[in-house]
Amino acid sequence: MTNVPLPPAHYVVGVDFGTLSGRAVVVRVHDGAEVGSGTFDYPHAVLADALPGSRVPLGIDWALQVPDDYRQVLRHAVPAALRDAGIDPADVVGIGTDFTACTMVPTLADGTPLNEVPAYADRPHAYVKLWRHHAAQPQADRINRLAAGRGEGWLARYGGLVSSEWEFAKGLQLLEEDPELYAAMDHWVEAADWIVWQLTGRYVRNACTAGYKGMYQDGQYPSADFLAALNPAFAGFVAEKVEHRIGRLGEAAGTLSAEAAAWTGLPEGIAVAVGNVDAHVTAPAARAVAPGVMTAIMGTSTCHVMNGAGLREVPGMCGAVDGGILDGLWGYEAGQSGVGDIFGWFVNNGVPPRYHDDAAARGLGLHEHLTELAAEQAIGQHGLIALDWHSGNRSVLVDHELSGLVVGQTLATKPEDTYRALLEATAFGTRTIIEAFNASGVPVTGFVAAGGLPKNRLLMQIYADVTGLPVQTIGSTQAPALGSAIHAAVAAGAYPDVQSAADAMGATPADVYQPIAENVAAYDGLFTEYTALHDYFGRGTNRVMHRLKAIQRRVSGPGAAAPAAATGAAVPA
Amino acid sequence: MTNVPLPPAHYVVGVDFGTLSGRAVVVRVHDGAEVGSGTFDYPHAVLADALPGSRVPLGIDWALQVPDDYRQVLRHAVPAALRDAGIDPADVVGIGTDFTACTMVPTLADGTPLNEVPAYADRPHAYVKLWRHHAAQPQADRINRLAAGRGEGWLARYGGLVSSEWEFAKGLQLLEEDPELYAAMDHWVEAADWIVWQLTGRYVRNACTAGYKGMYQDGQYPSADFLAALNPAFAGFVAEKVEHRIGRLGEAAGTLSAEAAAWTGLPEGIAVAVGNVDAHVTAPAARAVAPGVMTAIMGTSTCHVMNGAGLREVPGMCGAVDGGILDGLWGYEAGQSGVGDIFGWFVNNGVPPRYHDDAAARGLGLHEHLTELAAEQAIGQHGLIALDWHSGNRSVLVDHELSGLVVGQTLATKPEDTYRALLEATAFGTRTIIEAFNASGVPVTGFVAAGGLPKNRLLMQIYADVTGLPVQTIGSTQAPALGSAIHAAVAAGAYPDVQSAADAMGATPADVYQPIAENVAAYDGLFTEYTALHDYFGRGTNRVMHRLKAIQRRVSGPGAAAPAAATGAAVPA
Repeated sequence: MTNVPLPPAHYVVGVDFGTLSGRAVVVRVHDGAEVGSGTFDYPHAVLADALPGSRVPLGIDWALQVPDDYRQVLRHAVPAALRDAGIDPADVVGIGTDFTACTMVPTLADGTPLNEVPAYADRPHAYVKLWRHHAAQPQADRINRLAAGRGEGWLARYGGLVSSEWEFAKGLQLLEEDPELYAAMDHWVEAADWIVWQLTGRYVRNACTAGYKGMYQDGQYPSADFLAALNPAFAGFVAEKVEHRIGRLGEAAGTLSAEAAAWTGLPEGIAVAVGNVDAHVTAPAARAVAPGVMTAIMGTSTCHVMNGAGLREVPGMCGAVDGGILDGLWGYEAGQSGVGDIFGWFVNNGVPPRYHDDAAARGLGLHEHLTELAAEQAIGQHGLIALDWHSGNRSVLVDHELSGLVVGQTLATKPEDTYRALLEATAFGTRTIIEAFNASGVPVTGFVAAGGLPKNRLLMQIYADVTGLPVQTIGSTQAPALGSAIHAAVAAGAYPDVQSAADAMGATPADVYQPIAENVAAYDGLFTEYTALHDYFGRGTNRVMHRLKAIQRRVSGPGAAAPAAATGAAVPA
Repeated sequence: MTNVPLPPAHYVVGVDFGTLSGRAVVVRVHDGAEVGSGTFDYPHAVLADALPGSRVPLGIDWALQVPDDYRQVLRHAVPAALRDAGIDPADVVGIGTDFTACTMVPTLADGTPLNEVPAYADRPHAYVKLWRHHAAQPQADRINRLAAGRGEGWLARYGGLVSSEWEFAKGLQLLEEDPELYAAMDHWVEAADWIVWQLTGRYVRNACTAGYKGMYQDGQYPSADFLAALNPAFAGFVAEKVEHRIGRLGEAAGTLSAEAAAWTGLPEGIAVAVGNVDAHVTAPAARAVAPGVMTAIMGTSTCHVMNGAGLREVPGMCGAVDGGILDGLWGYEAGQSGVGDIFGWFVNNGVPPRYHDDAAARGLGLHEHLTELAAEQAIGQHGLIALDWHSGNRSVLVDHELSGLVVGQTLATKPEDTYRALLEATAFGTRTIIEAFNASGVPVTGFVAAGGLPKNRLLMQIYADVTGLPVQTIGSTQAPALGSAIHAAVAAGAYPDVQSAADAMGATPADVYQPIAENVAAYDGLFTEYTALHDYFGRGTNRVMHRLKAIQRRVSGPGAAAPAAATGAAVPA
């Protein structure tokens, strides 16, 4: 071989906007090597109790964010990643982003978030409604009832139930609780698209959230007639607040503006990919784009994404969207609204000091300590079954009025027992979803675990044993950001499509957890118990969870679920 | 008035043997004034994991005690009470005792506990089986099935179900798991009677435990024929191990022996009352002996006792015994096997460090701190319903295979929420019992709360609001010991009967908590939810709690529910 110098490497940047922070990675275009990264925690994190710098209280199930926190990720995490990579920013040819969804920003015509309008800064509805804002459940219920009653064709694409997390329920809540603000809002923007708007100066809706969260199916949104039947003032919601040009995944939405170039330290004019969702970009990052391979992005919540060759309607799935994950295939999505959040809640609220002391003495985090104790148990030894609905149920029941349950506690029950039961409950939740797909003609044949939780080896083995599928983890700690970088590479023209970019740039598997036959059999029995409780509490036999939430709202003061002043009597933090 | 000197005061001593300690009080005979007290903690407390000084492990649901711990109460707590009173021991005219029940001591013919026979010291069945030893459930199930199948008349006296806690189930377990020890046992003795035997040198069974725990009804025990049908080797159980002279409550069983006089510092030859049960002696201590007044002795567990004018059969009650509380009336008993135990379990196992720190900073115990936080809530604000079965259900389901449940937890659920839900669950459990009595023609018209828990004012108000009855607390911190002292006074001939002694010596009410109409209405709604869950999990619709316990036993190793060596593979502590 002659000593030909390599051409200068090209790079792309992927930025993943999560629930509490944003992280940027710099990725080499030709092989996907992650050469640098940076993260930035949102200064305001999640607003659940009150607005920033204010005593305006929020209702039960509210979860807001501050959009400027996202801009700060561009200003801090991207430059940090470039410094970490030690590359010349001039070698970066594109940037792609992914976001939590459905996370909604109400804006003026120029994209200014309403909370940045001084007159609106003290109004809860002016802020970003984070995906896990669940206070629009009454609106979602009405949408579901009306759509079912009218036989709306799009309803089956969402498993027969749309979520309170999505664009229409949250938008209707905004209209009904703060009509003045609704009137002042020019666009109801997915945060996934708002951040691209910040980067490019152009507003382009992405095909993924438009389909999964915006109920855009077969080229149209729900009709004005339908909207008017929900609320006459809502008739123009699509035409006036939502509808906009939709970009395909992997396309360039535009190029980096001078302003955004200054924020990020990247060259002005490079390609900016159409927005995307953290979960959905993970599938190409894991090279898991073949039909039947389910990618579970396991963090505070879990999102399951999977491509299918054709369209099937799966009860209780989150959505089937043409081109929703990969252009040219039907993308299926399902989810569990609480996973790591539940483990975190338990560790923060349910573990006594001696465990904290023991963990500290062993130099372990509390999760690790509890995991080690739980790993010593035989399956079923703790005598518990839990339902993993502390944050509601996204699939297959699509009901955020559900809540958590633990059955079987005795005076001998220890914290590691309950911890393990909660780990298992989330695995049972995943199996419930897989079985719904299998039963609907979209067989799940492979399982890839991504996100932060797969580092827990006990959890991964439980998932393999509960689902009966080998569980493969991903050799990247930044899979969504890598997935966004893959989309950036396609947007920049380095690859013809996302699939070929994924083949070249996607991460290799880290570990594969094989199901153990004896454990699979033991969990089959416990899954039967889980299913009985799931159906009893979740399918309407005993709607006690709904009633308890209704009581909770009522006694927490009139308007606990309503905004601003009306929530004055509301809930302690 | 002429200046006539008062006659020298006479005193009696009452000794209350609880689950973890014994306490003695010195009481003035003519007015019931408590002039001194002493307590002594059992050195071995409760054996749940292993035998003392040994690695012989115990099975799930085992709970043993060491009988010499009881003798030590006589040696230490009685002299301490006399010193505290500062009286001349020569002025003491009688001693009475009460005990947990059904707590059973296997003995030789002379009353020597089998665990004090060196050859048997390493055998679990040689020890005292504490009331909350629940490992004889399989035997109780067989007794219940057989008795129902044969139409045994005594079964209805126990609400249709006998408990695994009682004499026959525990005795059958002993026979079947350690037949050699069973053969060596001359008497199967209630601890309530064993301690009187230690004091007097005479074995007399008391009418209370004989009736409530020994299934002695209408002058006879279950027949040899019935016993043989359970197990041929069990046919002689009554004739050979149980049957003995029965003393009426308030009678003298005998007089204080020289040996016991030396232990206690009391005069030899004074009256020793027939044994009794902690709960049942509390009714006279509270002057709550009128038919329809329920006395709830609320501690680790709750025992409800009430006199009735006649005999009614109440489903799921613990027992109706002629003269079981007061000679001449039918005594009714019901119970909740876990109450304070559940709160204690939660506080020890489910409360994170910041609460411990806050409580310490405020100079409060954790129970007080959580209670204060819980007291700030509106009814239903926590959104939870719990089932109070962490230690099984004694009434009205009589099923120790049941377990605890909490429904409604979310990511916003705080420790004080769950704590309050557990307080409320026990109140719902009490209401369930009251409603069973009301529905069976034994109306409950008054409610007296005794024991350690009534000092929690929130708990008392919750009980008033849940039951709709005024809740009266007792102006004595040592009510059972006072009740035993009342029986001692009758045994010594100072009063003609327990009722008149109670009138003179019983404690005056401390507080009365009135139900608040608005709260009663709010709790009516939550009680409906509790009842639906109670019936679903407790009455056979979903026997998941049974199945989880069966799995737990199976995977904890063969023989986890069996004794000694067979439990070698068993359960971590």
